[in-house]
Amino acid sequence: MGAQQPSRGPAPHGHVTLTQVAERAGVSAQSVSNALNNPDRLAPATLERILATVAELGYEPNLSARALRNRSSRLIAFKVRPSRPDKASLLMDEFLYALNASAVAAGYHLILCHAEGDGGADEIKAYRDLLKKTSVDAFVLAETHRNDDRVAALRSWGVPFATFGRSWDGDDTLAWVDVDGRAGTRAATEHVAAQGHRRIGHLGWPPESEIGQERREGWLEACRARGLETDLQAAVPDTLEHGRQAAHRMLDAPRPATAVVCASDTLALGVLRALHERGMRPGAEVAVTGFDDSPTAALVSPGLTTLRQPIDVVGRQLIQAVENLIAGEPREPQHVLLQPELIVRGSSLPGPRTPAP
Amino acid sequence: MGAQQPSRGPAPHGHVTLTQVAERAGVSAQSVSNALNNPDRLAPATLERILATVAELGYEPNLSARALRNRSSRLIAFKVRPSRPDKASLLMDEFLYALNASAVAAGYHLILCHAEGDGGADEIKAYRDLLKKTSVDAFVLAETHRNDDRVAALRSWGVPFATFGRSWDGDDTLAWVDVDGRAGTRAATEHVAAQGHRRIGHLGWPPESEIGQERREGWLEACRARGLETDLQAAVPDTLEHGRQAAHRMLDAPRPATAVVCASDTLALGVLRALHERGMRPGAEVAVTGFDDSPTAALVSPGLTTLRQPIDVVGRQLIQAVENLIAGEPREPQHVLLQPELIVRGSSLPGPRTPAP
Repeated sequence: MGAQQPSRGPAPHGHVTLTQVAERAGVSAQSVSNALNNPDRLAPATLERILATVAELGYEPNLSARALRNRSSRLIAFKVRPSRPDKASLLMDEFLYALNASAVAAGYHLILCHAEGDGGADEIKAYRDLLKKTSVDAFVLAETHRNDDRVAALRSWGVPFATFGRSWDGDDTLAWVDVDGRAGTRAATEHVAAQGHRRIGHLGWPPESEIGQERREGWLEACRARGLETDLQAAVPDTLEHGRQAAHRMLDAPRPATAVVCASDTLALGVLRALHERGMRPGAEVAVTGFDDSPTAALVSPGLTTLRQPIDVVGRQLIQAVENLIAGEPREPQHVLLQPELIVRGSSLPGPRTPAP
Repeated sequence: MGAQQPSRGPAPHGHVTLTQVAERAGVSAQSVSNALNNPDRLAPATLERILATVAELGYEPNLSARALRNRSSRLIAFKVRPSRPDKASLLMDEFLYALNASAVAAGYHLILCHAEGDGGADEIKAYRDLLKKTSVDAFVLAETHRNDDRVAALRSWGVPFATFGRSWDGDDTLAWVDVDGRAGTRAATEHVAAQGHRRIGHLGWPPESEIGQERREGWLEACRARGLETDLQAAVPDTLEHGRQAAHRMLDAPRPATAVVCASDTLALGVLRALHERGMRPGAEVAVTGFDDSPTAALVSPGLTTLRQPIDVVGRQLIQAVENLIAGEPREPQHVLLQPELIVRGSSLPGPRTPAP
């Protein structure tokens, strides 16, 4: 456990050592190893006693860091998540490709994990199942959050890992790479303000999302710096339908929004859907910006102004981070905060063309 | 090599057996094995002679099927490809998730390959590099085409594999799963014809694409069955920009298209872009259909009518196919042709609402 993780009684993820098993069973460490790897070298009674102790203590030999380090598999594990039909943020597809390209360039391969649910417990179980079956050198985790159980689990097993997403607990011992959502949203807000918009709304996620909070802060900072009101804001789940409904509310307000800065491309596409339903033109009548530069952003008409994450660099830096950890380099864990790039398209510009009536 | 593959002199991918090395070097097969695994058991002169023969014949022990079968890794390899910014068809993201979910359910994990270029040679090199380093039970290939070198290579190495995409060479020995693009495009064409459209164009890929040919055939069949003209057709690369330009040409024709059936969502989004530029309303004025049901199709406004591929079933069937091959089941290789589902959205419907002028 890291310095930030207070001890909470017995380690929750079975961090039992071979030595502890040997002591409890009253045998040598070599005998425990034999029981697991060369059982025919032991007397049946001894074997039975050791295996009973292994079961009692819940010792899991494949989960120990030493075992992992001693037989390098050149495999790095990553959990893929399902793409959801109502979400534009298929950044993970691009991310996976970039991460794998960097892994292969460094002499590794990615091995994929699968977890049914969205929760940390399912993901931890998937990691555990993988480690029982396969030798893995390191893990890469995506979408960190506060009190991230996955971080605690991998730590308790002694497995090297790095995360796409900073430590929201202020844990300096975590190796992470992240993108500055606050700066990105500030840039998007400043961009629409520069087009003359004064009623700029923000469409973001509920406060539980640390990423969403950061993005909202960027909008707040930009508005305050220009003396603009910040009454037009909504916090909704990240779906097109929620974005659509929230946009209608902002456009029905007594002094309606003329620009909507969104925490994701998905929400921004919901705003575009609302404008389509009202027969209003994006850009020309209401400016809209997203976040992520998902493939859809370039494919809709007009194109969606958004923030591009430097996914290739994220992938490279994460592989570099786990390489350093695998090598046991004594330096400090890497913390890399990258800047997103504002990609301006028609959805936030007045546009030269007046459509036919 | 399969029955359909004529012999072309020496096998191109080094299918040399241990026995051939032993014969050439004038030693037993066990000695060759020792030279590679326990060199200290051999006299230096014998070792040197065997290693020289190994080099001469290009024998690669890790590529042999027996070696693979003897130490099951429970790993199935799959090459990920980059998502391109101008392409909507991010079906691969969904496919990868479905394939991995089925693999994990069957006790396997996916290991990812990476190849820089788009060509078969780069991909074959990536497979070869992977096999040299890692024990892999089977491969899954995507996007088969005529004279697919990857198929020949994996066969010559004796590695079990199945393909997402049928054999375009009529090779019955290949295990494949595919989706019926001809039936899908026929359904899309019949759908717009049922809305009253008589000038139905087809926007597809160049004739080198066997998948594109199948989809074009479906449009041709539906038009001929209804006595509709088939003069409005274009074959262009699969980008939004090419779709946009081809759509403008079809809409500038003396008797312009009132409906455009496309071979991909990417091309259909190009048609939507052209309509946007002309101030024309999709659905209400020109019906548009795509193919793939990419995430973007549900997110644009109006939504894009398209064909959904049963990706979950594809993933399950492919894993089943490689499981059968790994188990060495004597039954015929699986050939599974699945039906896509027409998803009707606003882009092909007249629509109830007249936008404000």
